[in-house]
Amino acid sequence: MQNYNNPSRSQWESILKRPTATFDDVESVVVEVFNAVKASGDQALKEYTKKFDRTEIDDLEVRSQELTTAENTLSKDLKQAIDLAYDNIYKFHKAQQTSRVEVETTSGVDCWQEKRPIQKVGFYIPGGSAPLFSTVLMLAIPAQIAGCSQVVLCTPPTKEGTVHPAVLYAAKRCGIQNIYKVGGIQAIAAMTYGTESITKVYKIFGPGNQFVTLAKQYATTLGVAIDMPAGPSELLVVGDSFANPAFVASDLLSQAEHGPDSQVILVSTDKKLIDEVSVELEKQLEELPRKEIAKKAIANSKMIYFDSKQDAADCIDAYGPEHYIICCEDEQFYIDAIHNAGSVFIGNYTPESAGDYASGTNHTLPTNGYTKQYSGVNLDSFLKQMTFQKISKKGIQAIGPAIELMAEEEGLQAHKNAVTLRLNELKANKE
Amino acid sequence: MQNYNNPSRSQWESILKRPTATFDDVESVVVEVFNAVKASGDQALKEYTKKFDRTEIDDLEVRSQELTTAENTLSKDLKQAIDLAYDNIYKFHKAQQTSRVEVETTSGVDCWQEKRPIQKVGFYIPGGSAPLFSTVLMLAIPAQIAGCSQVVLCTPPTKEGTVHPAVLYAAKRCGIQNIYKVGGIQAIAAMTYGTESITKVYKIFGPGNQFVTLAKQYATTLGVAIDMPAGPSELLVVGDSFANPAFVASDLLSQAEHGPDSQVILVSTDKKLIDEVSVELEKQLEELPRKEIAKKAIANSKMIYFDSKQDAADCIDAYGPEHYIICCEDEQFYIDAIHNAGSVFIGNYTPESAGDYASGTNHTLPTNGYTKQYSGVNLDSFLKQMTFQKISKKGIQAIGPAIELMAEEEGLQAHKNAVTLRLNELKANKE
Repeated sequence: MQNYNNPSRSQWESILKRPTATFDDVESVVVEVFNAVKASGDQALKEYTKKFDRTEIDDLEVRSQELTTAENTLSKDLKQAIDLAYDNIYKFHKAQQTSRVEVETTSGVDCWQEKRPIQKVGFYIPGGSAPLFSTVLMLAIPAQIAGCSQVVLCTPPTKEGTVHPAVLYAAKRCGIQNIYKVGGIQAIAAMTYGTESITKVYKIFGPGNQFVTLAKQYATTLGVAIDMPAGPSELLVVGDSFANPAFVASDLLSQAEHGPDSQVILVSTDKKLIDEVSVELEKQLEELPRKEIAKKAIANSKMIYFDSKQDAADCIDAYGPEHYIICCEDEQFYIDAIHNAGSVFIGNYTPESAGDYASGTNHTLPTNGYTKQYSGVNLDSFLKQMTFQKISKKGIQAIGPAIELMAEEEGLQAHKNAVTLRLNELKANKE
Repeated sequence: MQNYNNPSRSQWESILKRPTATFDDVESVVVEVFNAVKASGDQALKEYTKKFDRTEIDDLEVRSQELTTAENTLSKDLKQAIDLAYDNIYKFHKAQQTSRVEVETTSGVDCWQEKRPIQKVGFYIPGGSAPLFSTVLMLAIPAQIAGCSQVVLCTPPTKEGTVHPAVLYAAKRCGIQNIYKVGGIQAIAAMTYGTESITKVYKIFGPGNQFVTLAKQYATTLGVAIDMPAGPSELLVVGDSFANPAFVASDLLSQAEHGPDSQVILVSTDKKLIDEVSVELEKQLEELPRKEIAKKAIANSKMIYFDSKQDAADCIDAYGPEHYIICCEDEQFYIDAIHNAGSVFIGNYTPESAGDYASGTNHTLPTNGYTKQYSGVNLDSFLKQMTFQKISKKGIQAIGPAIELMAEEEGLQAHKNAVTLRLNELKANKE
């Protein structure tokens, strides 16, 4: 842990600096795989799966028999847990639906805005040691509510050529029809270009390692949108004497176990809390199966003490954490003072894990300071806003002269002319 | 004009292919300018302004005296036109405000979503022959409604070192405090890195030539968001015998005058309309000051006849036009059948110019097929959605066991532990 006492504003940037990844040697691999998938489609997918995932796949698509088997394999308790998470996530994202916005801006000028679904979306779900079936729910439920007509899910197969049953159960629960055993760069390439088996999509969502991250970034240069730019996961807790040190330590560790580059920060206006959390961290760390990973992240973690609540809040806002836990007496102050955070967890009984799995909020969030300009995944991530207008004869007569003047001043005579022709016709018909 | 008669579905992609720009030689210039601005700040801006805009600027910032002079210079009629446009754009974007979404997903589990403004935004407004003061309104009004606290506007100076008074009047009207005489790549670099005069922003909006487009794209690799990827402007009109051929021709020409690479398409289920529009096009073209530009775009324009309404609609949807005018008897069919369009103009008295200037809808729209996954600029472009949750003791007892099971199955023991600690404490205190 690295401890700081009332650091000055000029120090904040360097204290809270995030690790910057360099991808130079990965980039050539990404381009090579994309080109191969563009040229040879499914055949390339199978070859890369053999090379990278060390398994031979004849049929890339998961068939209904495998879905049924998965459902039968999974414990009843886990299925019920997934069902509970499904219900909460569904409720919260369903409530995000908005109705069409309609305004008659001038008499005879009707303007409205409607949201329509992105028709084709693709999800990348990491496999391997941590099969992220929770991410299936976080992406597929809002897509289902939005009404996306084609949903493609790609996930790398195990060495036995299978997919974790919880991933399949979650996908089936969300009505996903097209599930493929393909991972890594080749999965992103397949959803970008399309292959014999896999449909080309308009937007790709989901987490992944540095290869997947760079592949998604590369896909954006080929006309595909992505959910958001990625970076290591991060958690900032602000606490005072109201906070429970053991709970705070457990939250910091839940972040630390993600990876050695996870960002773990405690900001406090209470020195005692920093000492107590440090003791708890050491104690709890020893019990964790992933303690080697967590230890590295904790070694880089920051504990920052501030005398002033306002300084604490300003420092947090300058950082803009992905996950932000508030365990303070005056929680409203720390809610209102912040502009930049992905998801906010309030009070001693609101662990970050709740939002990761089952409370209902989405866990796909901006990291790396991108909270300053990006939203986390939400219902709108699967919709586009379109505008419409219908103008009556009276309407164009009311706003037409203003349009003519403005178009002329911008030097766009044909824009003016489109109005003038209509106004002249209306004048002629009146006379 | 290129005419097609009932083209088969397999031909649509090649008929409606958009021009693809290659930027290879521009890229090295972009990197050079960004590096210079990063290294030398304002000094670099002044040097590039001298080099590219051929004027020497001592003070990059537009001072209040210049704003007052602009207001006095502008004709009363044009000011009134801008004011009318302001009011309509304001009304339409103000109506897009939503209230906070709050759901108790499980008893004791309160989740809510709030939108907060992106604090720092930057606008690029092209200058030169066509000073796009209308774009100032389209960007600054929603930023004002969203509550963005810092708004920076960059626009290239004329050879006399001035800015068009209508740009200044529109900016003042929208309350923009920070206006700078700097254009091109160097303006985008300044808003990306910040200089002595110009604040670094989180998101950059606005149109520009290929240099500006590539600079914005490059900025996204440096942690800045942009409004959307850019491409040449485009218009598709669908018409039948209900359409007025002279009006349709005037709309197609208003698109064609933007540039020789503008996309101009007429889809019709009425052969007579195609013939009549072709005659009108030739006639109106001769009258235009920008006829040389428009001629080139019209030479590449497509006129597509379909027997079937459904084929027409499917073809339009596959293209996904930025601007989409419907002049058909059964307009509702052509509204409902389309998923992909930026802004839709309905009826004979709704020219595209109306939405470009004064009806109230935004004119910053996705082109190049990006209507399939991007929205046009709207109020939400200036806001981020953040989620919040507060869970009571009862709430964590209700959903905690599900979280424990899911975290364990994903191999994330510390995530489970953060819940277990809390549940154990509650159990202990109860006993």
